[in-house]
Amino acid sequence: MIKVGIVGGTGYTGVELLRLLVQHPEVELKVITSRGDAGTAVADMFPSLRGRVPLRFVDPQQADLNACDVVFFATPHGVAMAQSPDLLAHGVKVIDLAADFRIKDVAEFEKWYKIPHTEKALLDEAVYGLPEMRRAEIAKARIVANPGCYATAVQLGFLPLVEAGVVDLGSLIADAASGVSGAGRKAAVGSLFSEASDNFKAYGVGGHRHLPEIRQGLAAAAGQQVGLTFVPHLTPAIRGIHATLYARLTREVDVQALYEKRFAGESFVDVMPAGSTPDTRSVRASNTCRIAVHRPQGGDTVVVLVVEDNLVKGAAGQAVQNMNLMFGLAETTGLMQVPVLP
Amino acid sequence: MIKVGIVGGTGYTGVELLRLLVQHPEVELKVITSRGDAGTAVADMFPSLRGRVPLRFVDPQQADLNACDVVFFATPHGVAMAQSPDLLAHGVKVIDLAADFRIKDVAEFEKWYKIPHTEKALLDEAVYGLPEMRRAEIAKARIVANPGCYATAVQLGFLPLVEAGVVDLGSLIADAASGVSGAGRKAAVGSLFSEASDNFKAYGVGGHRHLPEIRQGLAAAAGQQVGLTFVPHLTPAIRGIHATLYARLTREVDVQALYEKRFAGESFVDVMPAGSTPDTRSVRASNTCRIAVHRPQGGDTVVVLVVEDNLVKGAAGQAVQNMNLMFGLAETTGLMQVPVLP
Amino acid sequence: MIKVGIVGGTGYTGVELLRLLVQHPEVELKVITSRGDAGTAVADMFPSLRGRVPLRFVDPQQADLNACDVVFFATPHGVAMAQSPDLLAHGVKVIDLAADFRIKDVAEFEKWYKIPHTEKALLDEAVYGLPEMRRAEIAKARIVANPGCYATAVQLGFLPLVEAGVVDLGSLIADAASGVSGAGRKAAVGSLFSEASDNFKAYGVGGHRHLPEIRQGLAAAAGQQVGLTFVPHLTPAIRGIHATLYARLTREVDVQALYEKRFAGESFVDVMPAGSTPDTRSVRASNTCRIAVHRPQGGDTVVVLVVEDNLVKGAAGQAVQNMNLMFGLAETTGLMQVPVLP
Amino acid sequence: MIKVGIVGGTGYTGVELLRLLVQHPEVELKVITSRGDAGTAVADMFPSLRGRVPLRFVDPQQADLNACDVVFFATPHGVAMAQSPDLLAHGVKVIDLAADFRIKDVAEFEKWYKIPHTEKALLDEAVYGLPEMRRAEIAKARIVANPGCYATAVQLGFLPLVEAGVVDLGSLIADAASGVSGAGRKAAVGSLFSEASDNFKAYGVGGHRHLPEIRQGLAAAAGQQVGLTFVPHLTPAIRGIHATLYARLTREVDVQALYEKRFAGESFVDVMPAGSTPDTRSVRASNTCRIAVHRPQGGDTVVVLVVEDNLVKGAAGQAVQNMNLMFGLAETTGLMQVPVLP
Repeated sequence: MIKVGIVGGTGYTGVELLRLLVQHPEVELKVITSRGDAGTAVADMFPSLRGRVPLRFVDPQQADLNACDVVFFATPHGVAMAQSPDLLAHGVKVIDLAADFRIKDVAEFEKWYKIPHTEKALLDEAVYGLPEMRRAEIAKARIVANPGCYATAVQLGFLPLVEAGVVDLGSLIADAASGVSGAGRKAAVGSLFSEASDNFKAYGVGGHRHLPEIRQGLAAAAGQQVGLTFVPHLTPAIRGIHATLYARLTREVDVQALYEKRFAGESFVDVMPAGSTPDTRSVRASNTCRIAVHRPQGGDTVVVLVVEDNLVKGAAGQAVQNMNLMFGLAETTGLMQVPVLP
Repeated sequence: MIKVGIVGGTGYTGVELLRLLVQHPEVELKVITSRGDAGTAVADMFPSLRGRVPLRFVDPQQADLNACDVVFFATPHGVAMAQSPDLLAHGVKVIDLAADFRIKDVAEFEKWYKIPHTEKALLDEAVYGLPEMRRAEIAKARIVANPGCYATAVQLGFLPLVEAGVVDLGSLIADAASGVSGAGRKAAVGSLFSEASDNFKAYGVGGHRHLPEIRQGLAAAAGQQVGLTFVPHLTPAIRGIHATLYARLTREVDVQALYEKRFAGESFVDVMPAGSTPDTRSVRASNTCRIAVHRPQGGDTVVVLVVEDNLVKGAAGQAVQNMNLMFGLAETTGLMQVPVLP
Repeated sequence: MIKVGIVGGTGYTGVELLRLLVQHPEVELKVITSRGDAGTAVADMFPSLRGRVPLRFVDPQQADLNACDVVFFATPHGVAMAQSPDLLAHGVKVIDLAADFRIKDVAEFEKWYKIPHTEKALLDEAVYGLPEMRRAEIAKARIVANPGCYATAVQLGFLPLVEAGVVDLGSLIADAASGVSGAGRKAAVGSLFSEASDNFKAYGVGGHRHLPEIRQGLAAAAGQQVGLTFVPHLTPAIRGIHATLYARLTREVDVQALYEKRFAGESFVDVMPAGSTPDTRSVRASNTCRIAVHRPQGGDTVVVLVVEDNLVKGAAGQAVQNMNLMFGLAETTGLMQVPVLP
Repeated sequence: MIKVGIVGGTGYTGVELLRLLVQHPEVELKVITSRGDAGTAVADMFPSLRGRVPLRFVDPQQADLNACDVVFFATPHGVAMAQSPDLLAHGVKVIDLAADFRIKDVAEFEKWYKIPHTEKALLDEAVYGLPEMRRAEIAKARIVANPGCYATAVQLGFLPLVEAGVVDLGSLIADAASGVSGAGRKAAVGSLFSEASDNFKAYGVGGHRHLPEIRQGLAAAAGQQVGLTFVPHLTPAIRGIHATLYARLTREVDVQALYEKRFAGESFVDVMPAGSTPDTRSVRASNTCRIAVHRPQGGDTVVVLVVEDNLVKGAAGQAVQNMNLMFGLAETTGLMQVPVLP
C-alpha cells in the first residue's frame, strides 16, 4: 500500500483527491493538512465523505508527512516550493497540483506568478506530469508538476498537429470554457451562484497563467516557439472544461487518422469519430479526455474540440495517474470510474 | 457472474443502471433492449459509456432474455406486467423499476395508473424492494417491485416515527423537491432547460402516483391507515430528492436516538448528527440516503430532512441493492461509489 | 419629482432598487452611498446600469441625504436605526429594507438579531410595510419597515385563512424555497456556484429570523398567538421564493372564493384559478405575487402555493410600492414591468 | 397607435415579442395566431402575462391580419414566405423573425434551409433588419428580414474591422456560445434540463445556418468575399449570446477608437472601456449589445467580445427596433428596459 499525505485538502482539488484516493485499491490515506481547519473532521467539511474518510485535518506543523511515500500539494502557489526539499530528502515523492514546478523558465514563472522561485534545481529536476507526453520521465521522477486544467486540455488537443508539423505555429487559437469549480472553493463575489449562474463571460483575455505553460509544452513538442492566443471563459457549470482549438493547415493531412494514431493505446484520451461534438458531461467525474477533430466545409482550418473534467483529468485524476506511474502501478488503477451522466 | 438483461435502457434509469452494472464485479451484462433504438450502439447514445459498454440496443422481439439470471425493467408502466410471467417461468428473476408491482390493492393501482392489472397472482407474490423494510423477503423473492424515488425517501424518513407509534398518523405532511431527471429523458416542454432552470414550482398537488405507494408502506409499518399530504416540487437540479417531513409527536421521545437505533447497521442510510441539514449533492451519484431529525424550538413538531439521489437510491442503485440481496451477495457489492462533490 | 437617496447600494437589493428607480417616472435619484466602494461609478460595479445611472457611490460621511425626500436603507441590520432619527428630524422619510423596525417587541428583536435596539420610540412609530395589510397606515407614515422576503410570501399566503379564522392556528406550517440571491452579494462559501448549483438543502430549521416577523403579522391578523413551523430551503435559482403553506381547516369554507375576495382589487397579488401551480419564473423581475389554493383530495388540509421575486415584491419592489403610497402616487407607478419569461 | 399582429406566438420569440409590445406606448396588440393552440388564452400558456395580455390565440385561417399595420412572423421558416404577399398587398408591413428573407442568394438559401424560395421578388425587396447597418433602408421598407441571433452579434462585432479594411478577411473566426432558449420552445431531448444543464458543447461545427447570413453581411461591408470559421456552442443559461471573435490585423490601428467611433450615437451598442469583459447577464432582458475589444499582449490578433440577449437584440427587441424605424418612431421607443441583474 502506498502511504499518502495531502497538504491543503480543503479546496475542490483536495476533496476530489480524497474521493479518488479513498477508492484506490493501493492507497492508504495517512494524513491531510489544513492551516485554517486543523481539528475539523474531513467528513464534517465534506459530508459526501461521511463514513468513508475517518481523518481529521491536521495542522501542517504537526503533520508527519515524512512517513508518507508520496505527498500531494493541493495548495496555493509557493507552498510546495517551500516544503518539497525536506520531503524529498526524506525519500518522499512529491506531486504538486499548483504551479510551482510547471514553468521551467524562472523569469517567466516569476513574471506570471509574482513570487520569487527559490528552488531552481528542483525546478530543473521536476517532470511535467502530462503522461501522454512524458510517461517515461514521470515513471522515474521524484517530483512531478501536475499540469493546469486548461493546459491539459489545450496541449492534448494541439499535440498531434504540432508534433506532426502540419499547422501554422504562429497563429494557434485556443478558445476555452471552464466550469466554476475551476475558480476554487474560496469565497469570491465573482464565483457566487447569483453572479455566475445564467451568465457567460470571458476573462483573462490579456493573459492567463496557463498561457506560458501551454506555450512551453507546445514549443517542446514543435521544437520551436509557437504563437498562441488563449481566451478562457466562465460557463455556468460546476465541472468541465471545453476547449475549441483553431489552427491553419500548412499541408494536406488526414487529421482524423493523425489523432487516432497519436492517441492509440492511451487509456484516458478518447478520439471520437469524425463529426462528433463531445460534451463535458460525457466525462463528468472521470479521468477521460475526449477529442473530436473537424475541418469545417473542407477548408484549411482545423477545429479541435476537447473536453475533460477540470477536477479529474485537469487536476486530481491526473495527479493520481502520475502517482500510479511513479509507483509502477497500472496507469488506470483506481481511475476507471464511469462518467456520471446525466 | 450474474447474467443481466435490461429491458428499456434508453432513459435515465437505464443509463444509470448501465453505469452501476458495468462497474459491478459480479455482473455480466448480456443484453439491453429498446424498441425505438434497436441497432444503435449504447455508447453512441450515451458517450459517457464509450469504451465501457460494447453492446447495441436489441429489438425486444429478438432479445434472448430467457438466458439471463435477472432482468431489470426500466420501462413505462405495463411492460413488466406483460413480460414477467414468461421470464419467471424460465427461471429468470425480475426487478421492475416501474410501478407494475408496487401497489398491492388492484383497484388502487388501476385508479392511479389508468391501466388494468393483468397479473394479480404475481402482484401478490412480488416483494416491495425497500431493503431497509423487507430485506429478508427480498432475499427470497423471484420478483421485486423497486420503489418509486419519492416513495423511497418519504418512507425511509417516516419509518422510525411510524413504527414507534409516536406521532399523529392522521396528519403527516411530506413536502419534497426533485431534480428534473425524475421526469425522465422524454422530450417534454415542461422539462426543457429554458422552462425548468431558474424556476421552482409544485406539481401534482391534487395527487401524485407515489402517494398511494407511500401510504401503503407507512400503513404496513404502522399497522393502521395513515393520513398523508404529499406535495412534490420541481427544483432546477439534475439529480437529487430532498424530502422535508412534518409530524406531530403524540408522546415524548428522543427522536435522534430513535433514528440512530432504527438505522444502525444500515449501509445506505446515514443518520446525521442532531442539527444537521443534509444537502442533495452530498449523496450525488451514490446509493446513500442521509437523514437528519429536528424539533424546531423544542416543540412537538418533528421535522425530518431526507436526501437521496433519485436515480441511485431512488431507482437504479436500489435495484442493484435488491439484486445483490436476491443473489446472496453482500448488499454493498458494486455500490460503494463515493458521492461526487462538488 | 421625488428626490431619492439610497444608503448601501452595492448589494442585490441595492442594484434592484436602482433598476426600478431609474425607470420610475416620478423619481430623481440623488445620491447612493457605500462605505467600501466610495468613488466607484455605479455602472462600473453593475455594468447592467451603464448608460442609465451616472452616479458614483459616495462615502456615507459626505453624502447629503438630508436634501432627499426619502431615503432607502439597503444595509445590514443596525444602520437604519443609527441614521434614521437625524433624517426624520430633517423631514426626510425613511424606508428600511433591513430588519431594524420590523419587530415591535424589543426583546424579541434583540434575541433574534443580537444587537440592542436603541430607537424604541421610532420602533413604535414605524409602520410595517406590507401594503396589502397596512395600506392606510403606510400612506401616513414617516418611517416604514419593509418586510422580509419570506415574511412577505408567507404572510400574504396565510392572511385570508387567518383573518377568516377558519384554520387551526396552532399548527401552521410554512415550507419555503428561496433562490440564492436571498443570501445577498457577500462572498460566502455556501453561496458559491459550485456549492449551491445542482443542490437543494434546508437551513435555519431551528429558527430563521423571519419566523418572529411572520408570527407577529399573523398574530395581528388573527387577534391571537399562532403556532408556526417554518422551514426555509435553498434552491439553485438566482431569484424567486416559493412558499408551500399547510393549514388544517376547522370549518368548511370555499377557500378559492375566500382568497379571491380577500385580494380583489390588489394590483400585485394574483389569485390563480383553482388547480394552478404557480412557478417562480412567472413573476421574475416583477412586483407580482401569485397565489394558488388547494385542498388535496378534498381533505381538511389546505395547501397554499405562493410565489414572488424575492428581490422585487420581497424587497426592492415592495419598497417602491411603499414609497408610492407614502407620496400619494398611484401604487403601481413605475412597477408595472412584465415578468421576464423564459 | 400601431395595430400589431403576431403570427405564431407560442415560442420564446413570441412570448418575448408580447412582453415588449405590451409595454410599448405606441402599440395596440390586435391579434396573435397559433395553429396548435387556437382558443387558448395567451395568459394560460404564459402565466407571466396574466393580467397583461387579454388575447386568446386565434386560428391562422380566421385571423384578421389584414386590419393590422404590421405583422410579425415568429414562425418556422417558410410561413412568412407564404403569407407575406397578401399582407403587403393589403398595405400591411411585415417583419419576419425567421430566415425567409435573410439570404439574398436563392441558391444559398435553398441549400441551407432545404425549402424552395417562392418569392424571389420579395426577397430582393426585403431589407435586412440590422439597424446599425441599414437604418435608412429599414425606415422605408415594407418588409424586413430580422437577423438571426448569432448573426446579429457576430456582424456587429466584426463590422468596424471589416468596414475599415484593417484585418485579414480570409481567416476570420467567430466562436460563440448561446443560452438554450436559442433552440426554441419545442420539445427536444437535447434541450432538456437534464441534458443541457451542467454541460457545455459545440454543435453545427460543419455548418450552421447563420454562417451564410453572416458571410453575406460581412461581404457587403467589406466589398469582397470573406472567409469565416464559425463555431457555435451551447451553454447552460436560459438567455444570452457571447461571441468571441478573432481577426488578424493587416495594418496598425487604434482598435478601441475605431469601435467607439463606429458606434457613436448608437442607442443599443455599448462599446466598453478597453480591457473590459462583458458578461451576458449585463444585457439580460434588454435590447443592448455590449462590445469590448482586446489585443492580447499587444500582438496582431484582435479579440472582440460581444454580448447580447438572444431573445431581445437577437430577435424580438431588434424586431421592435425595426418596427419603430418603419413607423417613424424614436428608435428606442418601448425598448429602454434596464437589464435584469442578478
